[in-house]
Amino acid sequence: MRTSQYLVSTLKETPADAEIISHQLMLRAGMIRREASGMYTWLPTGLRVLRKVENIVRDEMNKAGALEVLMPMVQPAELWQESGRWEQMDAELLRFKDRHQRDFVLGPTHEEVITDLVRKEISSYKQLPINLYQIQTKFRDERRPRFGVMRAREFLMKDAYSFHLSQDSLEQTYQAMYQAYSNIFTRLGLDFRPVLADTGAIGGAVSHEFHVLAASGEDAIVFSDQSDYAANIEKADALPPAVARPAATAAVAEVATPNAKTIAEVSTLLNIDATQIIKTLLVHAVKANAKSDDKAPQGLVALVLRGDHELNEIKADKHPLLASPLTFATEAEILAATGASAGSIGPVGLTIPVIVDHSAAVLANFVTGANKDGFHLTGVNFDRDIQNYQTADLRNVVEGDPSPCGKGKLVVKRGIEVGHIFQLGEKYAAAMKAGVLNEEGKHQIMTMGCYGVGVSRIVAAAIEQNHDQYGISWPDAIAPFQVAIVPMNMHKSVRIQEAAEQLYKELTAAGFEVLFDDRKERPGVMFADMELVGVPHHIIIGERNLDERKVEYKNRRTGEKTVLDLDAVVAELQQKLK
Amino acid sequence: MRTSQYLVSTLKETPADAEIISHQLMLRAGMIRREASGMYTWLPTGLRVLRKVENIVRDEMNKAGALEVLMPMVQPAELWQESGRWEQMDAELLRFKDRHQRDFVLGPTHEEVITDLVRKEISSYKQLPINLYQIQTKFRDERRPRFGVMRAREFLMKDAYSFHLSQDSLEQTYQAMYQAYSNIFTRLGLDFRPVLADTGAIGGAVSHEFHVLAASGEDAIVFSDQSDYAANIEKADALPPAVARPAATAAVAEVATPNAKTIAEVSTLLNIDATQIIKTLLVHAVKANAKSDDKAPQGLVALVLRGDHELNEIKADKHPLLASPLTFATEAEILAATGASAGSIGPVGLTIPVIVDHSAAVLANFVTGANKDGFHLTGVNFDRDIQNYQTADLRNVVEGDPSPCGKGKLVVKRGIEVGHIFQLGEKYAAAMKAGVLNEEGKHQIMTMGCYGVGVSRIVAAAIEQNHDQYGISWPDAIAPFQVAIVPMNMHKSVRIQEAAEQLYKELTAAGFEVLFDDRKERPGVMFADMELVGVPHHIIIGERNLDERKVEYKNRRTGEKTVLDLDAVVAELQQKLK
Repeated sequence: MRTSQYLVSTLKETPADAEIISHQLMLRAGMIRREASGMYTWLPTGLRVLRKVENIVRDEMNKAGALEVLMPMVQPAELWQESGRWEQMDAELLRFKDRHQRDFVLGPTHEEVITDLVRKEISSYKQLPINLYQIQTKFRDERRPRFGVMRAREFLMKDAYSFHLSQDSLEQTYQAMYQAYSNIFTRLGLDFRPVLADTGAIGGAVSHEFHVLAASGEDAIVFSDQSDYAANIEKADALPPAVARPAATAAVAEVATPNAKTIAEVSTLLNIDATQIIKTLLVHAVKANAKSDDKAPQGLVALVLRGDHELNEIKADKHPLLASPLTFATEAEILAATGASAGSIGPVGLTIPVIVDHSAAVLANFVTGANKDGFHLTGVNFDRDIQNYQTADLRNVVEGDPSPCGKGKLVVKRGIEVGHIFQLGEKYAAAMKAGVLNEEGKHQIMTMGCYGVGVSRIVAAAIEQNHDQYGISWPDAIAPFQVAIVPMNMHKSVRIQEAAEQLYKELTAAGFEVLFDDRKERPGVMFADMELVGVPHHIIIGERNLDERKVEYKNRRTGEKTVLDLDAVVAELQQKLK
Repeated sequence: MRTSQYLVSTLKETPADAEIISHQLMLRAGMIRREASGMYTWLPTGLRVLRKVENIVRDEMNKAGALEVLMPMVQPAELWQESGRWEQMDAELLRFKDRHQRDFVLGPTHEEVITDLVRKEISSYKQLPINLYQIQTKFRDERRPRFGVMRAREFLMKDAYSFHLSQDSLEQTYQAMYQAYSNIFTRLGLDFRPVLADTGAIGGAVSHEFHVLAASGEDAIVFSDQSDYAANIEKADALPPAVARPAATAAVAEVATPNAKTIAEVSTLLNIDATQIIKTLLVHAVKANAKSDDKAPQGLVALVLRGDHELNEIKADKHPLLASPLTFATEAEILAATGASAGSIGPVGLTIPVIVDHSAAVLANFVTGANKDGFHLTGVNFDRDIQNYQTADLRNVVEGDPSPCGKGKLVVKRGIEVGHIFQLGEKYAAAMKAGVLNEEGKHQIMTMGCYGVGVSRIVAAAIEQNHDQYGISWPDAIAPFQVAIVPMNMHKSVRIQEAAEQLYKELTAAGFEVLFDDRKERPGVMFADMELVGVPHHIIIGERNLDERKVEYKNRRTGEKTVLDLDAVVAELQQKLK
């Protein structure tokens, strides 16, 4: 492709409304343009990358025995009413009426449509297992779309759904998908990790997320430094400390802590480490009758954590004593329950149930809020000063925690979720009565798996992981072009022009995807554009080298520069791109 | 692909709700399934065909220098308000609100989005011309979706938009697209014709449609038998007859024609050829003030045609005396204007304007309604009996008419419109103020072309053109599989199984797309399925031939059967599929 016949569309300035580096670089490199909030047009450079990702995903899905289909984006409301999600889902599910006033949704996912298809199409155990997938545009009406295609409203997704008659069969396909996903991200050239994950609203029992590692990742993921254990921090168990609680040696004393409301402030004021201070959070208890429509809170519960630890909201959400979704007490509710405001509360003397995180429960002689504004208590001890409590795992693990697998310590990294696989079980099949005749001739509900890849999101995640101050540094497999030809001052030199044209012809004939910068631009502008767009291999043609029939090769990622014989360029690049 | 690991999903019975053969066969061959009215899931067999069509379209667009982009399906209402189509389009344009109550549409086409993109992205004449395309899902909320994917609500389309500063440049790209489309349909293996077309609601001056020829086609298209002239019948001019009008020799006589209301009935009753009878249609005149909101008709006009001719509504719509859109008079209006009902009216004695089609205007001594229920007039003549009239081209051409190009006679065929190219001009660019700085440094509005291919529709059109009593007979280029291996009673014969497995391995290694029917089915069932699905080349492995290391080859289209050496199959198929 010649730049003169292409839409380069690079920008020098960083657009003001782009917060993260991938969004900034996708705009600057001319990959995407905003049409409306959370909706983007993919320009030629962006689409070339998107299609490469899509094709690798498709190829690995086919190799894993999945069959590609294409379901409509627009879905009838009846199917969502049948599964129950018409009621359950909030405004993220975009609902609308057609000209005949029938209700439809714009598909954010296709569990309902595929279950409807399979229940009509598959009638016998002999046709199972089956794994159907599509690569298709989805719409999710995010309240606050942001970060470009990282969290867009309209996006491209690969979604697969498998159907089985036994858990064994489901696990086999799940394992095949786990492997296919590993192959996909390996082929994409990305540094990734599969981790145990929470199943969340999709439902099901077992689930893994695939994360592209990047410092800017929204998710914290944790690994054992001595085993294969890896999990989303949401999902990682914090083991109870193996140490016994020290003896209670100090007496309780009330100290004035004016203006010290956070753990950090109290720690500084009292010169006591945050690990010796506890924090107390009040949340709503589970309702007496979960099915009741009564919106009044059914009482509060105090959650107690070590000062340097963070509440894991997923764990709290699942605690049988607590309301789900997890709901924090209001300032007024806190005042009514404790007599103090949030910065000065603690478990001593509370009449509501208290749940103490395992790590907090082994502290002795610690500091806590006094339930009296502007005061804390020192020398507090469990059992002696706080009698009625239970313990639980309530916190996020931290770097250095023992791995829950029993081997090694945990390392924490940041990741961007780009894939998610679920053992769904019968959730949708049962609701929609999707069954087949089993070997005994009896009607049996199927069990399902579902497997998603955020195709457009991968493009942004790849950039978050692969960029530098000059722009994007694509892995070879998904670069918009493999090779850039940059002839210097070609329009003033017939010799350079001829060499560039000849090389372009040869490289194209050899099957390379070449971006030939034939614009009348200064070399500096051309270099900057090729670096920004992220073409991995540059061939620079200049007068001096050409005197000896040589050109310069530059590796975009490493910065390595070498001089190559003009006649050896094709062979050298074949070697590098093998 | 092994059928045992595939979703064959063929149906023996023709589904009751499928009216046309392509819809029936797509359901029976397991290509599509209905999700909702006008919305279909593409099953693996259908999707394989769809992707092949898509890839050929993409390849030819790229070769023609067009750049692929991907625009969102969801489009903000503001853009449609700017172009004026938010008001102009009826309920086919599906409108909805997002969670923030902002108005959006589900894109039926992308003129607005691309014009918005280009006006932001392109600022100088140096960047022109540019031709951007996408292959993307569209939604049109058809009042009466039918014929499966032939007239669906959700469908796949290739739409391209080119931008220029001069008519010359537009014409060059238009010509390149004309050639690309010809290449596409040639490569698809379809019998097609490009024809002159009306530009309709899209607007613009010059336009061609590309039709796949099929007896079931919705459109009539006409060709000269001696030149390249070809047009949609909507667009084809009927030349005024070269003959002079015969003399008026008969006197007017009133004859009773009880119950004879149609041309056919009058012709039979009076034993007079339909070519000697005229038909009269009353339509609304153009409003005195076209911008007036006054809904009252501004009078009627009588249109007069030869009895065997059909009114061309596009021509009438464009006549300066007539309302646009063309509006027929109601029964009450006809009675008020003529004193008779529709079956008995004629131009004699009418006080409203009369427009006579050129072919009717050369008749003499003809028959017409008497403007008196149950009576006709014979021996009627223009000028003598009908004074105030004008002539125009109002009719559809018919087979045998002289070609408007001046060479040859017209032949009429049926076609399915699968492509449409337009020289749009400034319609959208002017409304949306899309301009660039021209060579003189002045802001100039761009001129546009647009070019559509109905990708999913092509699949149905290909079937309408290529089928027989056994099912679909795909052209090689778009067949879901190229070769079927049909081993007879494989599960009872190790020898057949081994030969089949070996051949499957060899053909797959040689790059063929093979459907290997390894099901435990009777040979008859397997043959029927392969014919129905339309695999072009069948290799049948049976005991008798295998004794001599031979297999049977069958050509799906021609029915040709030959016996091949087992070891020669790969080479033979390479030859046939070259």
